Amino acid sequence: MKPVKVGLLGLGTVGTGVVRIVEAHQEDLQGQVGSPITIEKVLVQNKSKSRNISISSDKLTEDPWEVIRHPEIDVIVEVMGGIGQTKEYILEALSLGKHVVTANKDLMALHGPEILAKAKEHSCDVLYEASVAGGIPIIRTLVEGFSSDRITKIMGIVNGTTNYILTKMSQEGAAYADVLKEAQALGYAEADPTSDVEGLDAARKMTILATLGFHTNVNLEDVSAEGISSVSKDDILYAKRLGYELKLLGIAERQDDLISISVQPTMVKHSHPIASVNGVFNAVYVYGEAVGETMFYGAGAGELPTATSIVADLVAVVKNLKLGVNGKHSGIAFKETRLKTDEQISSKYFLLLHVADRAGVLARITQVFADAEVSLESVLQQPNPTNPEAEIIIITHDASKAAIQKVLGTFDSLDVVHKVKSVYRVEG
Amino acid sequence: MKPVKVGLLGLGTVGTGVVRIVEAHQEDLQGQVGSPITIEKVLVQNKSKSRNISISSDKLTEDPWEVIRHPEIDVIVEVMGGIGQTKEYILEALSLGKHVVTANKDLMALHGPEILAKAKEHSCDVLYEASVAGGIPIIRTLVEGFSSDRITKIMGIVNGTTNYILTKMSQEGAAYADVLKEAQALGYAEADPTSDVEGLDAARKMTILATLGFHTNVNLEDVSAEGISSVSKDDILYAKRLGYELKLLGIAERQDDLISISVQPTMVKHSHPIASVNGVFNAVYVYGEAVGETMFYGAGAGELPTATSIVADLVAVVKNLKLGVNGKHSGIAFKETRLKTDEQISSKYFLLLHVADRAGVLARITQVFADAEVSLESVLQQPNPTNPEAEIIIITHDASKAAIQKVLGTFDSLDVVHKVKSVYRVEG
Repeated sequence: MKPVKVGLLGLGTVGTGVVRIVEAHQEDLQGQVGSPITIEKVLVQNKSKSRNISISSDKLTEDPWEVIRHPEIDVIVEVMGGIGQTKEYILEALSLGKHVVTANKDLMALHGPEILAKAKEHSCDVLYEASVAGGIPIIRTLVEGFSSDRITKIMGIVNGTTNYILTKMSQEGAAYADVLKEAQALGYAEADPTSDVEGLDAARKMTILATLGFHTNVNLEDVSAEGISSVSKDDILYAKRLGYELKLLGIAERQDDLISISVQPTMVKHSHPIASVNGVFNAVYVYGEAVGETMFYGAGAGELPTATSIVADLVAVVKNLKLGVNGKHSGIAFKETRLKTDEQISSKYFLLLHVADRAGVLARITQVFADAEVSLESVLQQPNPTNPEAEIIIITHDASKAAIQKVLGTFDSLDVVHKVKSVYRVEG
Repeated sequence: MKPVKVGLLGLGTVGTGVVRIVEAHQEDLQGQVGSPITIEKVLVQNKSKSRNISISSDKLTEDPWEVIRHPEIDVIVEVMGGIGQTKEYILEALSLGKHVVTANKDLMALHGPEILAKAKEHSCDVLYEASVAGGIPIIRTLVEGFSSDRITKIMGIVNGTTNYILTKMSQEGAAYADVLKEAQALGYAEADPTSDVEGLDAARKMTILATLGFHTNVNLEDVSAEGISSVSKDDILYAKRLGYELKLLGIAERQDDLISISVQPTMVKHSHPIASVNGVFNAVYVYGEAVGETMFYGAGAGELPTATSIVADLVAVVKNLKLGVNGKHSGIAFKETRLKTDEQISSKYFLLLHVADRAGVLARITQVFADAEVSLESVLQQPNPTNPEAEIIIITHDASKAAIQKVLGTFDSLDVVHKVKSVYRVEG
């Protein structure tokens, strides 16, 4: 049987994992697709660098075009990352009729529609399971498993770095800056952690999930993103006391044909299954009208989990190749994207206020909520241990984002409210 | 566009759900497969029975062959249940070139290989996502999502009735018989609950999961099944005190090419994600060599979750129909089934013994473990509150099933051991 030949762009952690899995599971893979799968050419930055896998040196090249334009290569696996140059490589590969498997969330979040259109034009597959939540087959699940359902909500812990930090802060009562330093030392956070801790990485992944779940092209700028860098250990302590865990959640919602997508630190009720997803693990909670609650849990990153998803995509491409049906399975968007306004986005909110400790203050504050037509689920007033003022914790019923912004605007000019210490969305 | 015509065998809860979803989501379904999907004929037991969905009465029939042999029907959806007669219907449908979607775990567990072989012969699809864990797309995940990985362990809470009972016993300290009665009153347990509470239903589902996960034909008789009817509230209390939840787990394991499959009440460490799956929810935990730990959580039963899985299978069949590639995607087993012996099956065990309360007893008992080469992780001796004897709780390190049986055999003839109160497998 003629082997299927693969060109690999990048031989870092994930690329090495792909080579390892393809070699170690060759027999199983052949059993599934009926022919061998071989890695034919690999793009590396430096051919002479020593590596901890054995790969014949004539398979390595520093010239990307040697891989992309290789006449015998059927499938390009892209694990080099990056956006501008990488997009050019992928578009060229597609125009030469080569199928593409990529783990590149940035590329798919920013240029997904353009790449998928090019793929369709040349009857090529572009699969990208590994771009979201590493080893969890969530894209396949959204596209195929829930094909008959109407998904109305997707909530994801899709960034392992921030979940590790929040878990440590919660379990050890540690401060954000200390845990971040520790995470950097362990390699769980990058030297410049901005993309992770400010929620940008999660926003890119939610762009991909919402596009697939809602059958509509979501743009990265449609996602409102807020990170965890201003979360304090007190916030987490209060959350726990009230029966919540603080998690960085990506939330995509659909009501009729209006959608909203956001990433923000969120108070999640302990009883909700996503509240107990800890450490570097990822989880995606999906609510479908028919199926109800489901959740998918697993490793969000790492050499082998990510490589597993890539090789599963590779198997899918090869099956399609054998059947001659490439380029027909993509989840192309068929609905217009219509975003909710701030008046239409609704959730519960948690607010922690520092206020003047004198008679009548609570009445004035609750009147502000009443004026904005926000009703309250619970109110807790207590002395502030560190200041001669009171703390008020409020959890609202469902309220629009616009109404909460109106409340916060009024607090700005209210002398009895010294500080709005924290505002969090509440789920579960 | 020519509609795809579906024949439905059965119009009970799940069948009604299928009709509802196909109607409600017609537009979405067309967007995905490019043509309408219509329910053409429905087999019912009594045409004149009143129903809570509106379906034209000339679509209903009491004659199964009118559906199965209908010349225009492309796909048969089987939701009538049963084994002997139903198998005959399905084989006939396949031999007429009709594709089959079924939710019938009993049929697939007992006659899966025969049905899949017939399907292959006639280039037909047989899909059965709904047969295991209702709304969780676990079959698709095993077959496609983890196609590149080597799955070494599958642990499932795949029976909602028993999980509901154990959850209630754990949360309320209630006795088995009382909770069973309550579950029957709520419709969560059947009047004759044997199949659920004795682990047979779970064993059938594990047969299907192990066959797919390990690429080998597992027979129902390969599964050793033990139910929950002898679990006492004390057992659950002791489990909790030691940091465990008692769950009815299906466990399928593979080491090299040796497999073992069992269903039994199991002590699961609190920190393990499957320990917090409560109520009627199902979850399947999958361990892959590359992907590591993953878990899939959702509704295990119910009209709409089950119907969602069926319609997702229907969509897959229709996509294949459009592409002309039916009958080629099945996960046909390609490995020989080799079962582990009791010497090769290994796990930790929990034992609760009632023993004579006098000097030297613990020494004699621990000697029995030493003689069987079973080493102990923890030993706790305490007075028995209800009897003038002592209770000993032992948790072993990994030990073979044969060694534990040897220990239990020796205890039988040891006068200081009055009773082996409980023996449970331990996970996590």
